[in-house]
Order: sequence, then structure tokens, then C-alpha cells
Amino acid sequence: MLSRLRLRVPIIQAPMAGSQDHALAVAVANAGGLGSMPCAMLSPDGVRAEMAAARAATNGPLNLNFFCHSLPAPDAARESAWAARFTSYYAEFGLTPAAAPAVAQRRPFDETMLEVVQASRPDVVSFHFGLPAPALLDAVRGTGAFVMSSATTVDEARWLESQGVDAVIAQGVEAGGHRGMFLTADVTTQVGTVALVAQVVDAVRVPVVAAGGIADRRGVEAVLALGATAAQVGTAFLLCPEARTSAVHRAALVSPAASHTALTNVITGRPARGIVNRVMRDLGPMNDEAPAFPLAATPLAPLRSRAEAAGQGDFSPLWAGQNVRGCAAVAAAEIVRRLGA
Amino acid sequence: MLSRLRLRVPIIQAPMAGSQDHALAVAVANAGGLGSMPCAMLSPDGVRAEMAAARAATNGPLNLNFFCHSLPAPDAARESAWAARFTSYYAEFGLTPAAAPAVAQRRPFDETMLEVVQASRPDVVSFHFGLPAPALLDAVRGTGAFVMSSATTVDEARWLESQGVDAVIAQGVEAGGHRGMFLTADVTTQVGTVALVAQVVDAVRVPVVAAGGIADRRGVEAVLALGATAAQVGTAFLLCPEARTSAVHRAALVSPAASHTALTNVITGRPARGIVNRVMRDLGPMNDEAPAFPLAATPLAPLRSRAEAAGQGDFSPLWAGQNVRGCAAVAAAEIVRRLGA
Repeated sequence: MLSRLRLRVPIIQAPMAGSQDHALAVAVANAGGLGSMPCAMLSPDGVRAEMAAARAATNGPLNLNFFCHSLPAPDAARESAWAARFTSYYAEFGLTPAAAPAVAQRRPFDETMLEVVQASRPDVVSFHFGLPAPALLDAVRGTGAFVMSSATTVDEARWLESQGVDAVIAQGVEAGGHRGMFLTADVTTQVGTVALVAQVVDAVRVPVVAAGGIADRRGVEAVLALGATAAQVGTAFLLCPEARTSAVHRAALVSPAASHTALTNVITGRPARGIVNRVMRDLGPMNDEAPAFPLAATPLAPLRSRAEAAGQGDFSPLWAGQNVRGCAAVAAAEIVRRLGA
Repeated sequence: MLSRLRLRVPIIQAPMAGSQDHALAVAVANAGGLGSMPCAMLSPDGVRAEMAAARAATNGPLNLNFFCHSLPAPDAARESAWAARFTSYYAEFGLTPAAAPAVAQRRPFDETMLEVVQASRPDVVSFHFGLPAPALLDAVRGTGAFVMSSATTVDEARWLESQGVDAVIAQGVEAGGHRGMFLTADVTTQVGTVALVAQVVDAVRVPVVAAGGIADRRGVEAVLALGATAAQVGTAFLLCPEARTSAVHRAALVSPAASHTALTNVITGRPARGIVNRVMRDLGPMNDEAPAFPLAATPLAPLRSRAEAAGQGDFSPLWAGQNVRGCAAVAAAEIVRRLGA
């Protein structure tokens, strides 16, 4: 896997939708790791543009990452009940519910995105929340791309292998951002990296990439000892100048608050790990009333804008894993160097 | 630490109250690891007898483990409301609430137990749920015992070091049985082993023992790579003939159910990781109404007896970590051999 992907270090930069664009991927690819670009919040033209910008800046290996969720059926009662939970916040900021705009879109991978992949030929295509339909997946494979997806349980790893992925990303519960879980919605099934990686390595024959809580060289060596072929690292890159991490997110990452993250579904509707903030504390961190992903995000959007303008991350996704000690405001190449053996 | 404790392998057998006595500790000590004896459910005379039996069978290193919880103030309303949650189970088994006997006692470490330690001179004394009062702790140290306690967060590790422990056990969230948490009751603060061990190693100067999800040699090598001095392993010993694991517990460990554990407070009142069973599914796994440890256990006792007699673990503590693949019905010495480098 490492030679096929031309990796000089066994490091995959985790795709982080909302916190990065091609600049981070380029920096990591030039440093010998796999640079990843999150596409879930981009239009097809946006992906095309990002890929063109990246290819102009590196000959290194690049990964396009897509979400594979099903778009939820609208549930007006559930969504309006959820919006009502935010009434006092809206009053506090002098907003009316009408101020809630359409939320930033999260697109599942589809035919249109397949065309972008076919045209732009990334070295790797990775998926989160399962896999696209078999015909789409076959077509992705037909481009020659190396295909990966995230497993949060042994069952998910086995299922991914049965669908023909080239590698499984074992996402331990320490990991920041959205859980890739797709065979279950029960967060008690989520397993720590030490336990998950060893079991997934035993359960599948394809290479295993370990993710979750890996912040430095010791973490990389630990997951290699468990049998992983490479480590996927996200949080450690969030303070890099090449990342597009928001100011409130950067401030949170260097604050004492960063030592307490939790899995929450109140920000998007799917469980994701982030630094505990006001909305997580007030409404969650897990809430059975949250609408399906990504609809839970709708009422937060105007609050987030107002709060961030005031320097507050109270309504923002402050995604982070359980170990922020690898974060440093240094070039991404330096983070890769610190991680690499 | 390894030479002081005369360890030939960096393996500490985790004390498992309710699932073992001196026999397991002896077997592990004779195999080159640290044999641990759980004392929380024993009387002082019981501890004396266990220690005498162990010393008659090994010259190897032995650890006595104690709980350091505060006994809860009675709360009749809370306890009767909790008991009422079990009414339908009692009806199902033809029991009346009067059938609930006093539950098996969990004693915190006290003056009387100190006298036992002073008389029996274990090599190691380890604590769970914090530490005893400073005068008691000083007296334990005065016996020459090596003192350890569990930390589930970086803050807890720092606090333990400030109190003078000789080593900190970093208990990752993967670990089976009771969480050692004592500075917080919020389970979202609990950190996976990969993330916790690296951060605790950086935060304290004393040796760090890693616990949680370690099932085989790869797991041991992983935590040593993270900077741990030794690995504490419990679950992998539960099927050994030297363990006193109940029949329903053994059956659960080799069943598909073992792949799904959860943190629950419905069995004792404190969060503990066990294989998901009926009572956890029905009332939890976490329930804000559970009385304080150990009072939540009271209504379960007669149900547990009846169910176990019928071969069911529906009301039993089926403690296990998130990786049961190290479990095997082989001698404990063989498990130590498989774990050791």
C-alpha cells in the first residue's frame, strides 16, 4: 500500500470538511504523506477546482474524500421541534427564526461526483458513512483509484472488505469529527483505537489504516505495532497555516477546554467528536430529538455566524480528537516530520 | 519499576473483584507478572486468608487492590424509586421486593484494612476511585509497598502524582469493569488508551501503567511505544481455569454478545464496562436515577441469583473490555506468555 501510494512516511492526513482545502493536502503530499481533500461540502465544480489547484502544486499522492449518507426524508414536526429548542438563543442574539438560512450542504457521493473523479483521477478515493452503491463504487475503482472507507466496528470492517475496498480505516473512538459508523447508530458500539485496530487487523486481509488519538511519533509507532499499515491523523494539522481552521476553532484548540471533547449529534445530526461548547452542554452532547444528518445543523447556522463574529465558538463545530497535544502552529510538513518514523 | 517489583515481563494482572481470588494472582506471579488480588468485596479476615494462601504458593510479586469510594449517604426516596424499576422483573421471577437481601458489600480502604496490609506486606498496593486519606496512604507507604492508583484523565494522573503514588495506571476507556474516575462523574471525559497513555506519560514523572483494550503482545508493544512502563490486563485472564469467573460470564465472553460492551451504572451505581445484557439494555446503559455506588446493586441481587441458576446473565455484571480476543481457556501462565515480549 505504501509503495503503491508513493508514501515516504506512513501518514495519511485526515480529510476535515470545513477546516481545510487543497493547501493542506498539497503540503502533506509534498512532505511524503497522503494529502486528503474533503469534498462533502463542495459542489462538483468546487471539487474540480480544488483538484486542479492541488495538481498544480504537487505531484504527490492525493485523496478525495466523500460522504455516503442517505439524504433524510423531511420530517417537519421533528425539525420544527428542534428549531424550537433554539428559541432562547435566537432571542439572545436578536435573531428571528426566519433568519435561519439553508445550511451548508453535505452532498453524498453521486453520479456527478463520479464524473469529477473520472476526470480528475485522484490517487485515492476515501469514503465516510459506508460506501456508495455498487455501480458507483465499481466505476470509482475503474479509474484506478485506491479505495478506502472508515470502519468503527469489526462488523463494519468486514462489510467494507466484502465490498472490495483496498484498505479499511479503523476509526477509534478517540478520533475527532464525524464517526464513520454506518451499520449502527448506537454510540456505545464505538471502540477505542487500541482495541479496534488489533481486532480489525485480525478480521480483514486488506491493509488497515489506524485513526483516533494519534498525535505524535509514539502514536504512529503504537498503531504500527498493532498491525496497522499507516496512521491517519487529523487534529494535529488543525493549527497549521495551511489549514483553514476558523479563529474560534484555533482558539479552542489551544485553550484548556480542548482537554474535554465529547461525541455529539446536536451540531449536525450525526455523532461527531468535538471540544465541548455551549450548545453541546445545553442540548446534549447526545440528544434523541436531533433531526437526521445534516438537518440538525439548520438552526445553528445563524447563531454560529453571530457568535463567531463575537469571537465565540458556542455554536460552532469545534471538531477535535482526544489528544490535541500534537497540534502546533507550524508548517504541515513539520507535523508530518514529527509524526514520521 | 520492573526490577523493583521483580517483574520478568511488563504485565500486571488487573484485579477483578468478583471474578478471581488468590489462585489467579499466584499463577501470574509465578509466570513473571504482577499478581493482583481484589479486596473490595472481602472482609479484613478474608484479605488475610487470601494473602496467606497466595504467599504459601508463590514468592512472586503480589498486589492488593482496594476501592477508595466514600460510602454514600442513604437516600430512601431514590433507592425506593430505583427498586420500583425492578418490579416487573421480580414478578417475572416470582420474587417479592422483600426478597432483596443486603448486597455484597464493597468496602472502602480503612484503618482495619491498613492493619491487614501492615501485617501481610504485599509488594504493591493499588487503589481504584482515587486514594485513601493522606494519613492512611502514608501508613501504606510506610510498609514499603509500591503504591499505584488509576487515572482516567490527565487531571486525575496529575493529582495522583501530587499525592505521592509510585506509578499511575492510565485506564483507557476500552477497559472492562469499573472506571477508576474520581475527579469527575461525567463519562464523556473518559479517554481512549492511545490518547490517554501518551498524554499521561507527558504529564507525570512517575512510571505509567497502561490499561484498556490490551489483549495480546501487539497491544503490549503498542502501549510500550506510547511510553508506558507496563501493561495492565484483565479481560484476557477471565477464561483461565485459575479465575473464578461465573459460568454465565464465561458463556457471555465466548458468545457474539462479547463484541458489544458499554459503560453502565445500572449494575452498581458507578460506570463500569460490561457486555451488554438485558438489564443494561432495559434501564441504561447509563441511568441518571441509579442510586450511588454500591446501592444501585441492591435490587439486582436476587434477580441475578435466579437468572444465573437458569443459566442467564441478564442481571449479572458481565465485566469485559472492548477486546475479548485475548481470552482463552488456558492456564494464566500461557496468557502471560502470549502477552509478554
